[in-house]
Amino acid sequence: METNQASTHAFDTAIALSPIDNNTWTGRTTPAYANMVGPFGGIIGATLLNAVISHPARLGDPTSFTVHYAAPISDGEFTVHARPLRTNRSTQHWFVELMQDGQVAAFATAVTAIRRDTWETTDAQFPEVPPADQVAQSPAIPQAAWTARYDMRFIDGGLGTGEPVDHPSQTRLWIRDEPPRPLDFLSLAAMCDAFFPRIFIRRQKWTAAGTVALTTYFHADAAQLHEQGSAPLLGVARGLHYGKGFFDQSAEVWSAAGKLLAASHQVVYFKE
Amino acid sequence: METNQASTHAFDTAIALSPIDNNTWTGRTTPAYANMVGPFGGIIGATLLNAVISHPARLGDPTSFTVHYAAPISDGEFTVHARPLRTNRSTQHWFVELMQDGQVAAFATAVTAIRRDTWETTDAQFPEVPPADQVAQSPAIPQAAWTARYDMRFIDGGLGTGEPVDHPSQTRLWIRDEPPRPLDFLSLAAMCDAFFPRIFIRRQKWTAAGTVALTTYFHADAAQLHEQGSAPLLGVARGLHYGKGFFDQSAEVWSAAGKLLAASHQVVYFKE
Repeated sequence: METNQASTHAFDTAIALSPIDNNTWTGRTTPAYANMVGPFGGIIGATLLNAVISHPARLGDPTSFTVHYAAPISDGEFTVHARPLRTNRSTQHWFVELMQDGQVAAFATAVTAIRRDTWETTDAQFPEVPPADQVAQSPAIPQAAWTARYDMRFIDGGLGTGEPVDHPSQTRLWIRDEPPRPLDFLSLAAMCDAFFPRIFIRRQKWTAAGTVALTTYFHADAAQLHEQGSAPLLGVARGLHYGKGFFDQSAEVWSAAGKLLAASHQVVYFKE
Repeated sequence: METNQASTHAFDTAIALSPIDNNTWTGRTTPAYANMVGPFGGIIGATLLNAVISHPARLGDPTSFTVHYAAPISDGEFTVHARPLRTNRSTQHWFVELMQDGQVAAFATAVTAIRRDTWETTDAQFPEVPPADQVAQSPAIPQAAWTARYDMRFIDGGLGTGEPVDHPSQTRLWIRDEPPRPLDFLSLAAMCDAFFPRIFIRRQKWTAAGTVALTTYFHADAAQLHEQGSAPLLGVARGLHYGKGFFDQSAEVWSAAGKLLAASHQVVYFKE
């Protein structure tokens, strides 16, 4: 963790937790990462993961992380509880709850693991796209403050910034924190949830929509994330199926050099 | 649920739960679905989902389901606890634990939801493959009893039955319960975990490997699953990245008519 350099970044303020005991913290929403209603989901996810990372009993790096957005989160304070459910020799399984007004508003499960060198290959295809500095930065969306916290450059599949090319609901974009912040698991977790709802892209119109559950698999360890510094990452997302009030989105986040840093899959509620 | 017809099927015996109270059941492993070590993960997942489906407070159909395989499960009895963490007007969020010897051996989270008709489309591509009756049935693997509980017909990406064609770790197969059993959320959840570990296919050799966490998104509702009867389903799975002791696999399960019934993504431990 880049605690010194990052301590003043709006991201670190947004995910900050004040310890109550070994398993319990308080946090609060911040206007900097507000969404149209309530906070940006990616910042809630990162806050829950921050509880795991801050826990004194943690073993290894985040490897799998699932967040459930169980109810709307109100602006203001919340409490986070995190506890290991099972600790093995090199893996650990976690359960985290975010409580507001005495009810569970969000929760997460995670696997942390001691990563070690093994046989290695990537079968997913790194897309051929122009480098970040050859793609125009997209303006932030005034109604969603969090969008101003990212430098987003859409190659295709933006909101009115370009129709998808290869796939009817695919987005490819360069993304980094704005202002730049050294990459870690927390910021990567948030970026994995920074894709606009696929249904906006697919239909090129707005409808009420919100992530219900999101899983992210981290393929990089802490040292590999550290190597990225604050360089832009390439995000690719597409929808698989839409119907009966829900759609799913799968996504990958790559380094500019073609390393697959994380893959994620989420299910999203939509109204009509 | 096809309780009458299904009550004698080995699958229903394997996932059976005896109620202790509204939130608690006992179950036991069965030799019919044994894996090389311990039970087939898909049957454990289906058992945990069965607790959600059996719960008197359940609202709607399974929509999202995440299982963590936290520790090896010993042959014999276990206890399952399931409780809703949050109930909304049309969605409900669940936490389920499987206890053995006083410890959490597996756990799951789920979203159930009242599905309703909305705009609908599928962006994922239904693969062009020969129909099930034109593909040879694969023999079961003697060391893994559960493989005899499925009729599996590999189009490509089998264990020595055909090299992947389009992707180095892709498998496409027709699969159904053996003997046939009417499809429901429980059997579909198990089939989503019935793909052999991608690393076996990718390297065409065996290594110690086991699912750590698996998420399945159900795109079909109960009526759509019921319509499938016991017809073979088309499963497609591929690996994305392998390294530092883990790989991930994304998969889809389709009806023969091209309906996307479920999509899943899992992270798998491997030894070397």
